[in-house]
Amino acid sequence: MEKSTWVATPNIAVVKYWGKKDNYLNIPNNGSISVTMDETLSTRTTVEFSPMHKKDELVLNGQFARDTELARAVKVLDAIRKAAGIKERAHVESENNFPTAAGIASSASGFAALACAGADSAGLQASEKELSIFARLGSGSACRSVLGGFAEWKVGSKKNGSDSYAVRVAPAEHWLELRNVIAITDSKRKKTGSAEGMELTTATSGLYSERVRTRPEIIRLMKGAILRKDLPDFLELTMRESSHMHAVMLDSFPPIMYLNDVSREIMWSIHEFNKSKGKICAGYTFDAGPNAHVYTVEKYANEVERMLRGISGVQKTIVCRSGNGPRKLSDMYALF
Amino acid sequence: MEKSTWVATPNIAVVKYWGKKDNYLNIPNNGSISVTMDETLSTRTTVEFSPMHKKDELVLNGQFARDTELARAVKVLDAIRKAAGIKERAHVESENNFPTAAGIASSASGFAALACAGADSAGLQASEKELSIFARLGSGSACRSVLGGFAEWKVGSKKNGSDSYAVRVAPAEHWLELRNVIAITDSKRKKTGSAEGMELTTATSGLYSERVRTRPEIIRLMKGAILRKDLPDFLELTMRESSHMHAVMLDSFPPIMYLNDVSREIMWSIHEFNKSKGKICAGYTFDAGPNAHVYTVEKYANEVERMLRGISGVQKTIVCRSGNGPRKLSDMYALF
Repeated sequence: MEKSTWVATPNIAVVKYWGKKDNYLNIPNNGSISVTMDETLSTRTTVEFSPMHKKDELVLNGQFARDTELARAVKVLDAIRKAAGIKERAHVESENNFPTAAGIASSASGFAALACAGADSAGLQASEKELSIFARLGSGSACRSVLGGFAEWKVGSKKNGSDSYAVRVAPAEHWLELRNVIAITDSKRKKTGSAEGMELTTATSGLYSERVRTRPEIIRLMKGAILRKDLPDFLELTMRESSHMHAVMLDSFPPIMYLNDVSREIMWSIHEFNKSKGKICAGYTFDAGPNAHVYTVEKYANEVERMLRGISGVQKTIVCRSGNGPRKLSDMYALF
Repeated sequence: MEKSTWVATPNIAVVKYWGKKDNYLNIPNNGSISVTMDETLSTRTTVEFSPMHKKDELVLNGQFARDTELARAVKVLDAIRKAAGIKERAHVESENNFPTAAGIASSASGFAALACAGADSAGLQASEKELSIFARLGSGSACRSVLGGFAEWKVGSKKNGSDSYAVRVAPAEHWLELRNVIAITDSKRKKTGSAEGMELTTATSGLYSERVRTRPEIIRLMKGAILRKDLPDFLELTMRESSHMHAVMLDSFPPIMYLNDVSREIMWSIHEFNKSKGKICAGYTFDAGPNAHVYTVEKYANEVERMLRGISGVQKTIVCRSGNGPRKLSDMYALF
């Protein structure tokens, strides 16, 4: 068993995951679709299974992880050990190339990198499907980051989650012009974490079952828009889906509100921008936080970025393309 | 026909009206329940039908009303004329005892006062039902302000709206301890007016039909909570209903967002307050704007008011009780 180092990137859901059937296995209530990002934002992870390690250890951005954080990684390592038929414990080190405080979810890239580097270090010839399932156990949305480009996470129907994984809708090359202009806004402490928020919504929102019931049709429409590279359809579906998720969050009791006045200003500005162009050429999506991911194409990216920078409360913008998914690095890049 | 002067007060919906079956007649898609406020905030209106007036005129806070504003009043005056069998035009003057800029909807109190003073000046012995219908033609929610205390606006089933009016759930005296602590927050210009917003929601929100479908049950529960004077039930239903409406607003496309960071802080503080008390003893509701109406009982009113005043962005607080509905004033108080 050798040390293995992989880099993986976050993904942004354009049809969103919010609410689980199974809290331990991270099996979602509805399917989702995402775009995997390029390496502008990425996580590098080195895993080494070895008889030398007495217990699983995770060093995250230079700090030993504990409790829940460590437990999530161990869940992934356990699944890899089981598949590989090994017993060895692992030492894991992981680093993000972006500040954690920036409020960009790093769990998707983190667990995708862990799944790939872990399986590789365990000597497992894992398929994308297997890697996606390993990643899912750490963080639901990570199962989509194992794939490059445009990915769909299938709910599946099996109790053990063996058919709940991400599949490719289209590779990154399919839509090269696409850009994600990220606007980092003031990020105060979240009042409700994602896991806790999901449980609250599924337990208390009267509108949630309607959300779950209607997602398959939205997924069908979103796949069509991606495959046709239909920008206005893709963007309108993306914006509507973002608001749809935030609507059922607001319908929770107590209500969950991740959007703030800056997010609201961004949303409003995008609609004004589209109006000025006479067509939909930019569209926002917000995950469980106030940072905006604004999708557009190369042609409008500079203009959109300038506009976002002009909004008071936008601290920084970052532009990404869609990326190719995780890749292995040479030992030169190992973290230990 | 004599000059008649009436005072009427706003009402706050605890089960809310959002979306119309008939735009001209203001027939709603779902029923609603409100609490009529006392005269802390009120509108005084004088109406005189007379052969001397060549056309209907409306002076609102010292300014002649025109266009849409005037047209809404004429709709009410026309209905009164038809019922009374008269042809005379009317001169109307109306004044709010609170600044219009404060962002508190004055159309409910305004059209309730117009309906009462208009019918009286026309010599009509109008029932509450008739007055409620007259008021509804000017502004949907005004039909509830014609009744004191706790009122339910029935959707009705007739095309002409003759069975769409408010009925009494309980008089103001039923729950004397109840208080409404209003928190006036920074009120920027609304980006979407109510009428426009309702049309947008009914046309574009996928969740809206679910809202309409489920309101009768919420109305049943809310009536029960009011009749039992069950404070925790009343407050929880009120908070949930407020968020429910704002959720379908957010689900509209483009999204409608009336809640801002200050509203959000208020909501959060109320939940913290209830947590500290170990029970639900205060509950917010927001109409189509960022100002909060926080319901509580006398016992907690000072504490709630102090807490709201401590929130940055809360400019002013006003405390109301539930009120008895419109009343006639002597000619001494006529506005002209």
